[in-house]
Amino acid sequence: MSHNSFGHLFRVTTWGESHGPAIGCVVDGCPPRLPLSEADIQPWLDRRRPGQSRFTTQRQEPDQVRILSGVFEGRTTGTPIALQIENVDQRSKDYGDIADRFRPGHADLAYEIKYGIRDYRGGGRSSARETAMRVAAGAVARRVLGEGVRIRGALVQMGPHGIDRGRWDWNAVEGNPFFCPDPVAAAQWEEYLSDIRKAGSSCGAVIEVVADGVPPGLGAPIYGKLDADLAAALMGINAVKGVEIGDGFAAAALTGEANADEMDIADGLVSFRANHAGGILGGISTGQPVVARFAVKPTSSILTPRASVDRHGKAVEVATRGRHDPCVGIRAVPVGEAMIACVLADHLLRHRAQNPDAPDTLRLPRN
Amino acid sequence: MSHNSFGHLFRVTTWGESHGPAIGCVVDGCPPRLPLSEADIQPWLDRRRPGQSRFTTQRQEPDQVRILSGVFEGRTTGTPIALQIENVDQRSKDYGDIADRFRPGHADLAYEIKYGIRDYRGGGRSSARETAMRVAAGAVARRVLGEGVRIRGALVQMGPHGIDRGRWDWNAVEGNPFFCPDPVAAAQWEEYLSDIRKAGSSCGAVIEVVADGVPPGLGAPIYGKLDADLAAALMGINAVKGVEIGDGFAAAALTGEANADEMDIADGLVSFRANHAGGILGGISTGQPVVARFAVKPTSSILTPRASVDRHGKAVEVATRGRHDPCVGIRAVPVGEAMIACVLADHLLRHRAQNPDAPDTLRLPRN
Amino acid sequence: MSHNSFGHLFRVTTWGESHGPAIGCVVDGCPPRLPLSEADIQPWLDRRRPGQSRFTTQRQEPDQVRILSGVFEGRTTGTPIALQIENVDQRSKDYGDIADRFRPGHADLAYEIKYGIRDYRGGGRSSARETAMRVAAGAVARRVLGEGVRIRGALVQMGPHGIDRGRWDWNAVEGNPFFCPDPVAAAQWEEYLSDIRKAGSSCGAVIEVVADGVPPGLGAPIYGKLDADLAAALMGINAVKGVEIGDGFAAAALTGEANADEMDIADGLVSFRANHAGGILGGISTGQPVVARFAVKPTSSILTPRASVDRHGKAVEVATRGRHDPCVGIRAVPVGEAMIACVLADHLLRHRAQNPDAPDTLRLPRN
Amino acid sequence: MSHNSFGHLFRVTTWGESHGPAIGCVVDGCPPRLPLSEADIQPWLDRRRPGQSRFTTQRQEPDQVRILSGVFEGRTTGTPIALQIENVDQRSKDYGDIADRFRPGHADLAYEIKYGIRDYRGGGRSSARETAMRVAAGAVARRVLGEGVRIRGALVQMGPHGIDRGRWDWNAVEGNPFFCPDPVAAAQWEEYLSDIRKAGSSCGAVIEVVADGVPPGLGAPIYGKLDADLAAALMGINAVKGVEIGDGFAAAALTGEANADEMDIADGLVSFRANHAGGILGGISTGQPVVARFAVKPTSSILTPRASVDRHGKAVEVATRGRHDPCVGIRAVPVGEAMIACVLADHLLRHRAQNPDAPDTLRLPRN
Repeated sequence: MSHNSFGHLFRVTTWGESHGPAIGCVVDGCPPRLPLSEADIQPWLDRRRPGQSRFTTQRQEPDQVRILSGVFEGRTTGTPIALQIENVDQRSKDYGDIADRFRPGHADLAYEIKYGIRDYRGGGRSSARETAMRVAAGAVARRVLGEGVRIRGALVQMGPHGIDRGRWDWNAVEGNPFFCPDPVAAAQWEEYLSDIRKAGSSCGAVIEVVADGVPPGLGAPIYGKLDADLAAALMGINAVKGVEIGDGFAAAALTGEANADEMDIADGLVSFRANHAGGILGGISTGQPVVARFAVKPTSSILTPRASVDRHGKAVEVATRGRHDPCVGIRAVPVGEAMIACVLADHLLRHRAQNPDAPDTLRLPRN
Repeated sequence: MSHNSFGHLFRVTTWGESHGPAIGCVVDGCPPRLPLSEADIQPWLDRRRPGQSRFTTQRQEPDQVRILSGVFEGRTTGTPIALQIENVDQRSKDYGDIADRFRPGHADLAYEIKYGIRDYRGGGRSSARETAMRVAAGAVARRVLGEGVRIRGALVQMGPHGIDRGRWDWNAVEGNPFFCPDPVAAAQWEEYLSDIRKAGSSCGAVIEVVADGVPPGLGAPIYGKLDADLAAALMGINAVKGVEIGDGFAAAALTGEANADEMDIADGLVSFRANHAGGILGGISTGQPVVARFAVKPTSSILTPRASVDRHGKAVEVATRGRHDPCVGIRAVPVGEAMIACVLADHLLRHRAQNPDAPDTLRLPRN
Repeated sequence: MSHNSFGHLFRVTTWGESHGPAIGCVVDGCPPRLPLSEADIQPWLDRRRPGQSRFTTQRQEPDQVRILSGVFEGRTTGTPIALQIENVDQRSKDYGDIADRFRPGHADLAYEIKYGIRDYRGGGRSSARETAMRVAAGAVARRVLGEGVRIRGALVQMGPHGIDRGRWDWNAVEGNPFFCPDPVAAAQWEEYLSDIRKAGSSCGAVIEVVADGVPPGLGAPIYGKLDADLAAALMGINAVKGVEIGDGFAAAALTGEANADEMDIADGLVSFRANHAGGILGGISTGQPVVARFAVKPTSSILTPRASVDRHGKAVEVATRGRHDPCVGIRAVPVGEAMIACVLADHLLRHRAQNPDAPDTLRLPRN
Repeated sequence: MSHNSFGHLFRVTTWGESHGPAIGCVVDGCPPRLPLSEADIQPWLDRRRPGQSRFTTQRQEPDQVRILSGVFEGRTTGTPIALQIENVDQRSKDYGDIADRFRPGHADLAYEIKYGIRDYRGGGRSSARETAMRVAAGAVARRVLGEGVRIRGALVQMGPHGIDRGRWDWNAVEGNPFFCPDPVAAAQWEEYLSDIRKAGSSCGAVIEVVADGVPPGLGAPIYGKLDADLAAALMGINAVKGVEIGDGFAAAALTGEANADEMDIADGLVSFRANHAGGILGGISTGQPVVARFAVKPTSSILTPRASVDRHGKAVEVATRGRHDPCVGIRAVPVGEAMIACVLADHLLRHRAQNPDAPDTLRLPRN
């Protein structure tokens, strides 16, 4: 058991605080002989990096990752891979005024009650800065999954504003500062978020991640279900309050007839007529795309003063200055992708251990 | 790591198939000297038991639990508690016609591809019958939590039909066959579900569980967050497709101002003006009620034939006869409660291990 | 984490007390489609069964194992395998006089201080009766390992009396009541142990277990080493006080030259000139026989009164009547074999997960 | 599960290779508000540091530890503690000639077969250099245990030469380069080891570690026994081939009467007349000193050529030059202490979680 690790066979342990000297992680269980270098990891970090548009925090962190172990002559060795990023642009004085007061919506009070001590600078351990290491670990997980598995995320709702799924275009996702797959919505969001930002306010978001090419058979009943592990992985991202697989909450309103994903077979290969299940049945991947969504609450750091208390038990008002994302959901897109990559990599190894001769396709009869 | 265990310090391992001789579980890590007997567990099982109204499966299972170890002279001993229920009313012949064909929406195909073998009778290991042991384990978890923690669930949506929260009455929950807290809605649902049942169809549901009296400080950043573990526990229940904590997906549409749960202090005790967070911030309980919701898809066993395939790779049609719940979400209410009890008990022990002197209340200053 | 489970991918959880209604275990992670029935397990239990000679306890337990889940139509399904044995010949009244007093050398006082409660009947959870389930689990592990791996144990020392290794004969092991590989020593031990038994005394023993056919590559540096896991598995058997791999403590007295197992190669296959290492280097199996030894202390239940204390803090004398093995080390032989089988099965699955294309032989070059 | 972590609630994950840029570890689960700085850790590292006498490797590593997270204003915060040491004096060219050939007694061949790749420089991941991080983690564990628990190790045998236990003097341990508690033996060993070193040979050793002040109740039956975890921790140290608790293998030769540790009581406090058990009964600490011994094989790196093979399947001879300890057992003393500290800290937290009101002394009656 560990508080700061996730995964079992592909296991990631992260460490570090927002304003400490560095953050890092240890990726354990990665198979040997996979090509890996900093250049394989850096592009994913760059997507999550702050300060790239006016819609994310202006903290300037180059987020240069270093591999400190587990790779020899450009290939993984099967031993633990230590990754590390120096913190560069800490501005801890920004946080002096919250050393003693608890920001509503933040983890401040919870940490104080639990631990009786906290590194308040930039949120310390509870800062979203930690998610950089998830993204780095996710890059390694993608290597484990191989090129046949493609994991892509998109923002499908900003504040109250959704998208038109008829306009979904994966190519559009990298073309706007929101990872929005609907270019029209992206333009509207730009205006909406500018107003939010100028007002010192914030808004929430919904992210959707789709994993194509996931082999069938990943997931272990009853308490190692793939969807259960995905739910934990996504709910564990900072500020997430809801998780859905496939149709999610909308499935509750369907009839059994409408919800059943009927199957066909051609040349021995099974195909599905729909994907209400989001690629998972009975906790096990079906070979269809794995579809997950998660809801991010609005950034709790806002300029408007809110009623709160301080460590000494005094009533106070708190307004958070510092540098913040008006919509943390945006940068949660690469984080969500990375978490899903890690969960899939873990389950791929677990599946392989117990079922080394299971097929990678939906071909029937199995043998 | 285990496929069939959950929890860490309060750890539950279940076993058994729908039509095997028995089902059971081992509860490990329970503190010693807690009063425990079958009579403490049976009432919770009776709430989940099938065949109690025409809206649940007509399979008649007395679900009599036996304690086989870990209890001596009426008290727990700190050693593993084995619980067991005999299966009585298996009608395996009902399932002969699905031995070879995969029911859409069920785990049949996924098991076949993964394992190359499955106990098809009644769904085997993937049957909701296994959830009886979760309820039994949950009864032990309630003992660990003590009487100060109250965990109650309710059905808040059946098919497309919600409730009027203004009429919420916990007393009403036990007064209708749906665990519905709104008596008016319950009456309407009765008609709706009768129609569904007669048509051989099915519908989904949304369940809400509220845990009062949860001490602050439960939950371990970053990868042992209380909400992450709750999400996994609930998503791992059969047929669940979505999980929310507090405002859940609705939080995405709020501004930071609206979402912040402001705090007051009186006589040194912190209180909150709202509970958008659902009792959890930064993955740690705040002392407010923990509020979780989960969505259950419609029962996949329906009378209407659906297109599918069989083990030999032939296209077939499948209509499921057998005995089934038209809305499995109903009996998911006690299961959801039990899972939350288990997660809370686990985190209580974990919290206590690392923070033995942490307070049970929100009194400030902490020392 | 679990107090009553061992293994990771091949994971065994046991439960039950000496005088409860039954004992049992859950074997989780077993690969699917392996042939398995009670008849595959029972012979191993019969070897460990009490009451088979005058040198083991006269408690008469048929130790009939039942498979309650995880097997369908004679083959494993990949779901948890529940095994159970009824307790039949409990004579709890034998233990009434130790309800309040702590037997020296036993776990009585330690349980009292730790838990404040204990099932004193027959030692409760700390009884060697629990080891029956280890033997049952070991039988399943042997299935996982396959017929190429042979695990055999023998008693190599009884009290102060060793064997002549020049007379080692595996066939002799089943021909005497001590699992002794040296027929001459066995005859001498018979006389020695008769005297011990008549005097109401007891003696210790040393057991050696050899596993042939173990594929190279099992074991995971740095904290999942095969020898470390073997050491834990063997030290965790009741009454064990020491564990050795290969030359063990004798290796300390060697020079580096004497200790090095030199290698040869013929037809591409590596062979070793010696096996001081006991088949494990750097925590990883080398393909040589894995050799482990463990020391069992004398049975603590003896007739001679010893000074002790009782629960109320009074000085008392304790003499243990009941039915006991004069040398518990004898029945530890099948238990030691079983533990090693479980550890090897676990590591086989772990190795396969991370290194699916690793070779099963010492052929060079590897590719 | 993790290959490179140990412990459960006090959990240590290490990473790094002998000739990589750095080595490090993450200590997770440490309780908050403990005073901790580099100055608390460095002295323990200095004891293990190479190059301090002519009897250890001449590699010069300052082994300066840095704390990168988990400590704020001089106290632990309850979040993961990252520790790191730069590698300074790598002389990788020393190892060019073993890139392709497998050193007998080393893990080289085992890694090759398992992973198909290895960082051969200085032994890579299998180098004893990794044990520096164990010592660092052990320093944190000592903080968790508090000043009441004292853990001290000593070398009790070098090659074939033991000590006179009648001359045991803990103060002598730091006064010779061997951690020998018998000054007379230390002087003799100096001559013996000089000869070994000059001959390019090596020898083994036996280390004994004693932990005083361990509270009763640590250890969890049946598969989390304190002695089982100690056995794994010690057997997992590089080159260890045997582990004993208390009388160890000598216990096999005792009678039950001789082996029983009789008890007395005075003023309500239980005391023991002997400690054959080494402070552990039934896997649970008794409050007596915990006594463990482990045997280290002779250093496998020797100058005398030994028969071996290379990666290409050719027969070769291997003589190891490089810089090596003639007796690695010496520097294993602080490592053994550290491992025991970590295991005890882990079990202290585990015990506290399940038994928060268990007493710290052997006072009876318990309540």
